[in-house]
Amino acid sequence: MPTPRQVYVAVIGVGGVGKAFLSQLQALKTRLAKARQPICLDLILVSRSSKTLFSESFRPLSLETWEQDLAASKQPVLDNEMLVEYLATAPEKVVLVDNTSSLAIAENYPRFLRKGVSIVTPNKKGFSDSYNLWQDMFAAASNGSGEGGYLFHESTVGAGLPVLSTLKELVETGDEVTKIEGVFSGTMSFLFNSFMPVAGGGGQFSAEVKKAKELGYTEPDPRDDLNGLDVARKLTILARLAGLPIESPTSFPVQSLIPRELETCQSGDEFLEKLPNFDSDMEALKKEAASEGKVVRFVGSIDVASKKVEVGLQKFDASHPIAALKGSDNIINFYTKRYGSNPLIIQGAGAGGDVTAMGVTGDLIKVLNRL
Amino acid sequence: MPTPRQVYVAVIGVGGVGKAFLSQLQALKTRLAKARQPICLDLILVSRSSKTLFSESFRPLSLETWEQDLAASKQPVLDNEMLVEYLATAPEKVVLVDNTSSLAIAENYPRFLRKGVSIVTPNKKGFSDSYNLWQDMFAAASNGSGEGGYLFHESTVGAGLPVLSTLKELVETGDEVTKIEGVFSGTMSFLFNSFMPVAGGGGQFSAEVKKAKELGYTEPDPRDDLNGLDVARKLTILARLAGLPIESPTSFPVQSLIPRELETCQSGDEFLEKLPNFDSDMEALKKEAASEGKVVRFVGSIDVASKKVEVGLQKFDASHPIAALKGSDNIINFYTKRYGSNPLIIQGAGAGGDVTAMGVTGDLIKVLNRL
Repeated sequence: MPTPRQVYVAVIGVGGVGKAFLSQLQALKTRLAKARQPICLDLILVSRSSKTLFSESFRPLSLETWEQDLAASKQPVLDNEMLVEYLATAPEKVVLVDNTSSLAIAENYPRFLRKGVSIVTPNKKGFSDSYNLWQDMFAAASNGSGEGGYLFHESTVGAGLPVLSTLKELVETGDEVTKIEGVFSGTMSFLFNSFMPVAGGGGQFSAEVKKAKELGYTEPDPRDDLNGLDVARKLTILARLAGLPIESPTSFPVQSLIPRELETCQSGDEFLEKLPNFDSDMEALKKEAASEGKVVRFVGSIDVASKKVEVGLQKFDASHPIAALKGSDNIINFYTKRYGSNPLIIQGAGAGGDVTAMGVTGDLIKVLNRL
Repeated sequence: MPTPRQVYVAVIGVGGVGKAFLSQLQALKTRLAKARQPICLDLILVSRSSKTLFSESFRPLSLETWEQDLAASKQPVLDNEMLVEYLATAPEKVVLVDNTSSLAIAENYPRFLRKGVSIVTPNKKGFSDSYNLWQDMFAAASNGSGEGGYLFHESTVGAGLPVLSTLKELVETGDEVTKIEGVFSGTMSFLFNSFMPVAGGGGQFSAEVKKAKELGYTEPDPRDDLNGLDVARKLTILARLAGLPIESPTSFPVQSLIPRELETCQSGDEFLEKLPNFDSDMEALKKEAASEGKVVRFVGSIDVASKKVEVGLQKFDASHPIAALKGSDNIINFYTKRYGSNPLIIQGAGAGGDVTAMGVTGDLIKVLNRL
């Protein structure tokens, strides 16, 4: 058996996704070590906002006890500058796993990449910020036009669903993507599947928002879902991969479900308290859709030819796949020249720690296949 | 700009898929030549059963005029032995693209692979034949447990739909696939969507088979679709990737839609002539399903835990995604531990030259990323 190749893994962010990733990393390490052509995956750094644990000598940290070890760490917290320096001096290939949702870290991706560090991440911020940052990242990455590390971000759209890999393959094999349409937010999916089920019924809009919050389907402050920005960020990423130079997630029409009068609320609680005053607007919309045999859903769409990107409420026939979604599932329809009138459809859970981490682990495997 | 890496491509089989592939290859070559880190893709061999055109000196053949050049070729037809020898002597990496449906060629995959030749193919035969051949192939391949060429076969199931890549990623990232269920045949999809649409109606079974044949949705002899073997081959491949050592596509229950009394028909025409005598059986099934608010569909399913693989007719609620399929679309539902009760679903055209070739071109790109 040949000598195992060594690859170092540095993990920043150890919330729900980060923890699930570290557990998947441990399983992957075991599987790879048993393989005929083994790769030795070693954890060399793990950090949360207030704590860092790293191996000064690049000897592997424990994947069993990292949580206690991190809690007990007295090492200095590394800022981005120090992190770049530390990873750049590693004697073997390094993959940085960014499980945060920090733009500040993402702004440093080009520097990491230029130093040969590969990056896999579910962090949408960098990929949906300025088009300049997008260009800088892919100008540096080896799977862009550069010669640095590799860069993959499958979980930035649809979590572990194979959305970005499918879009990339359509483009790379020369298909012409004409339109992308779908439900890109687990929160919005759950909310509208409850507010207006195909079978009829459903509660007042404000009550469904409250229920979604209580069940953990929304951000701590539900306004962060209802403003549509999360979906706009995902659409920005998809549109850029489809070839449109979208400047930012605010450079196209995004419908916010926060009533104008409530935009000045001081807190999420105040917002939730006042939202019932606006239920009649949503109820009117529901009645109008029902009278046409349709349901209301919160969707994003990209018309590639006309370069039109939109996020907001739309009505769909009860028989449409977008209407028939269940729970908090996402659905993504790719309309292309090759696929004709029936789109290529990907559907399933688009949020959750395990499935999001799975997209990250899948990206790590893509990097390992290329290193 | 660095010197382009050279990769040779040899294409056997130039029917609908082969022609579409060669056209995509030409577009890919142009795109790669423009890339920052170029790969020079050169065609060195193209063949059909009765003709071979190859470059004795490994100078590239023309991607513009290959069709006329092949027709005019006076070169000897290379048998498998000679083909292995020829490709093994190439001075650069070689990818063999097998667009045939020949088992004889597939039986030689292990030899090609051991000589370092990579293979991409939509040919189901080898992957669904004996389990020994499957093991031999992946024992030789670098993306198996060997050190030879790479081996990809995305288009053997669902054509260009990302079915196998998704299943592989679920398995490689440590998810537990519990069940796979779906409609795996464009022909069967079209046939049953016409025979028993969710909205009601549909003609007699034999009339729908005739219509499907006239529209080009069936094999020249429709018995080759109705015997269920095509679906059984795809299920064999999926089950093996999910970890089940399925011996062959005839080692599990496969329902044939050819009435026992017509098994001895001498020709497809005789079969089509006599099939109306058996319409009452299918009509009874249709009535029974309708009385339960269901529709009949021809599906394949794999229960991983109980190792049960099945192909045949099943009834589905009108609201089930499998019931709601359109045209000749395929649908594949992956039930896994991470995805819980709502499956990960992939849906879209699962047949046709362009989309099948797209899966092959996508596989070629995977090889190029690894070479």
